[in-house]
Amino acid sequence: MTDTVSSLLAEIADVGTDLRRGGYTRPVYSGAELDLRWWFCAHAQKRGLDVETDRNGIIWAWHGGVGDDAIVTGSHLDSVPGGGAYDGPLGIASALVAFDHLQARGVSGRRAIAVFPEEEGSRFGVACLGSRLLTGAINPRQACALTDNDGVTFAEATRRTGLNPGHLGTDLETLARIATFVELHVEQGRALADMDRPVAVASSILGHGRWRIAISGEGNHAGTTLMADRCDPMVAAARLVTEVQRLTRGISDARGTVGRLVPVPGGTNVIAARVDLWLDVRHPDDVTTRHLVDEIGRAARKLAAQEGCTAEMAEESFTPTVDFDPRLRDRIAGVLDAAPLLGTGAGHDAGVLKDHVPTAMIFVRNPTGVSHAPQEEVEEADAETGAAALAGTLEMLLHR
Amino acid sequence: MTDTVSSLLAEIADVGTDLRRGGYTRPVYSGAELDLRWWFCAHAQKRGLDVETDRNGIIWAWHGGVGDDAIVTGSHLDSVPGGGAYDGPLGIASALVAFDHLQARGVSGRRAIAVFPEEEGSRFGVACLGSRLLTGAINPRQACALTDNDGVTFAEATRRTGLNPGHLGTDLETLARIATFVELHVEQGRALADMDRPVAVASSILGHGRWRIAISGEGNHAGTTLMADRCDPMVAAARLVTEVQRLTRGISDARGTVGRLVPVPGGTNVIAARVDLWLDVRHPDDVTTRHLVDEIGRAARKLAAQEGCTAEMAEESFTPTVDFDPRLRDRIAGVLDAAPLLGTGAGHDAGVLKDHVPTAMIFVRNPTGVSHAPQEEVEEADAETGAAALAGTLEMLLHR
Repeated sequence: MTDTVSSLLAEIADVGTDLRRGGYTRPVYSGAELDLRWWFCAHAQKRGLDVETDRNGIIWAWHGGVGDDAIVTGSHLDSVPGGGAYDGPLGIASALVAFDHLQARGVSGRRAIAVFPEEEGSRFGVACLGSRLLTGAINPRQACALTDNDGVTFAEATRRTGLNPGHLGTDLETLARIATFVELHVEQGRALADMDRPVAVASSILGHGRWRIAISGEGNHAGTTLMADRCDPMVAAARLVTEVQRLTRGISDARGTVGRLVPVPGGTNVIAARVDLWLDVRHPDDVTTRHLVDEIGRAARKLAAQEGCTAEMAEESFTPTVDFDPRLRDRIAGVLDAAPLLGTGAGHDAGVLKDHVPTAMIFVRNPTGVSHAPQEEVEEADAETGAAALAGTLEMLLHR
Repeated sequence: MTDTVSSLLAEIADVGTDLRRGGYTRPVYSGAELDLRWWFCAHAQKRGLDVETDRNGIIWAWHGGVGDDAIVTGSHLDSVPGGGAYDGPLGIASALVAFDHLQARGVSGRRAIAVFPEEEGSRFGVACLGSRLLTGAINPRQACALTDNDGVTFAEATRRTGLNPGHLGTDLETLARIATFVELHVEQGRALADMDRPVAVASSILGHGRWRIAISGEGNHAGTTLMADRCDPMVAAARLVTEVQRLTRGISDARGTVGRLVPVPGGTNVIAARVDLWLDVRHPDDVTTRHLVDEIGRAARKLAAQEGCTAEMAEESFTPTVDFDPRLRDRIAGVLDAAPLLGTGAGHDAGVLKDHVPTAMIFVRNPTGVSHAPQEEVEEADAETGAAALAGTLEMLLHR
């Protein structure tokens, strides 16, 4: 094989481009993401790997046959709306190239590349849905009932890909096959650029969760309804967004974001009947996160009532702060030229798997530091350095 | 013909229903609106009317042959997202039934029913786009460049319906054929219900306009970007929505609404890069409207700057306050059992046509008073009373 990380990513540069937002929009099980899954399977098969899709939609590409005690790497192919080219696909392309390095060096031992569906949660609202189903972190009936913006359920989307939604859920047999899981990912900040280093090893993932808030008022005509007669949920939602910023700023290290907000029906000359908004809150201390979210919930109800509206809040997901296995982390840093350790504010499948198998992550330098936006960047040399680092890590783990 | 207004509306009750928002979503030149146009043409042809679509996409159904000095009635078939069943289609169904009444009474004289495209401006942002093009109130090149949410231009949408976008624009010949235009419309408030009267005659239309405000910041990851490092346009937009309410409430009789707001890219775990929002402002005094919009524009720039963002505002449309021809208005009220006179806060094609031909409007009681929402209502008996009132009005005008 003469593939490089850059040549692999170049092959998919036209898949799921988003002309309106810029960057890529590749929601799980969309045409674009399915194209990427086919692309990965073709590359895996070309390498003689045994490819299977498990009952949760995770693709596994095995070297040395399907079986237990495997060293596994992998990432995801879905994107946020208008995301960058590297978040997810860098880990997959690097895994293919790392396997090529191991093959060239004659390294033996069972290993696999895993492709997790709906890591971003951009389509069905729950991030890391594939690994959550695999590990039992989400009830499959609850997952089946999740809907996308068009009202399509996750069950239906699963069925359309040829899987049986009745078979979704905890899969201890598959989980037991993983001896260690290592995910390579583009860094989602500027720490490596500031340190002038190409790769880092993850120390922790910030605890994080998503909450959906629906504020209901009275839809009516924007011209015929006097200001005094309105129950406008858009005004209540606006006050809440401002309050999320104020409350979050009051807590050191907390992040609170409203990046998705949908007025219903959403017409220019229509007072909204309802506004749906999604809250993303993160903090190293899970009790603080819960406390902040409770405060925001109280503010939502109070601000809604002030406008004659009502507010409801529902948790879509919550993942506690994850500290990666320090021994594994240090062993990896050791073979990577004493790579620095970095915490991250972003969630990953490695964080969900962490309570079930030893997991680790490798980050590759992102000179812009921008993430979840088209400006995300990785230099070609760093991408190949990252793949070599992943190969070195896998080789060390295979020689355990 | 034995059609009633209710039986006609029942025929289209399943066209363009919106399961997510409730009510109907029938954007201009969508499958649903094209179905309604076909439905209208079939009914017009069944009545022996000569049907033609002019170069601006307005359908004309002529009794007594195409020609000058015609009494014209009509309305629209497009809807806001999640709108009611009556806003637009009531005027079209009532026109067909009124023509039946005239036919049964042997009333002669040239008359026509007109169906105007994009009255709501829900798809391309400019309300009454058909009548604006017809009268030259909008430059056809500017109209052609308008885009819908999917990036389709009005030129392209026009082309897809079989029209030539190069032929859009002022059509004095067609305009000259209209001796008088009367539009029947569901009332968009509770005045008739409170007066216990089935129909009213319009006295005026509140001046109104739409402005698009784009607030640009820095898209980034919701977990990895510290609160202090953000340029979040959602927070600026939220402060602006609150300020629109505050500034508007400070001016008697003003209405200021943000009913449509789109964060881009719009992911839960993504700080938005840009927020587009649409402002609807109305006031009886056009100078006051301009003044209020200027104040909102200044607030947008200031609030954006506070969040490290920038704001741009562009006018999408502005229609001054319209006072309908008092002589015509009083003649109509006279034949309608001294119907009350009502001003309206909603825009209509009759308002756009008013500077070119004598125009008038008839309103039919809406017991809920709700408009641009599924709760909009007209009782069956009132719908037939409205059609009879329109027939009486047209007969009076034909006997001029």
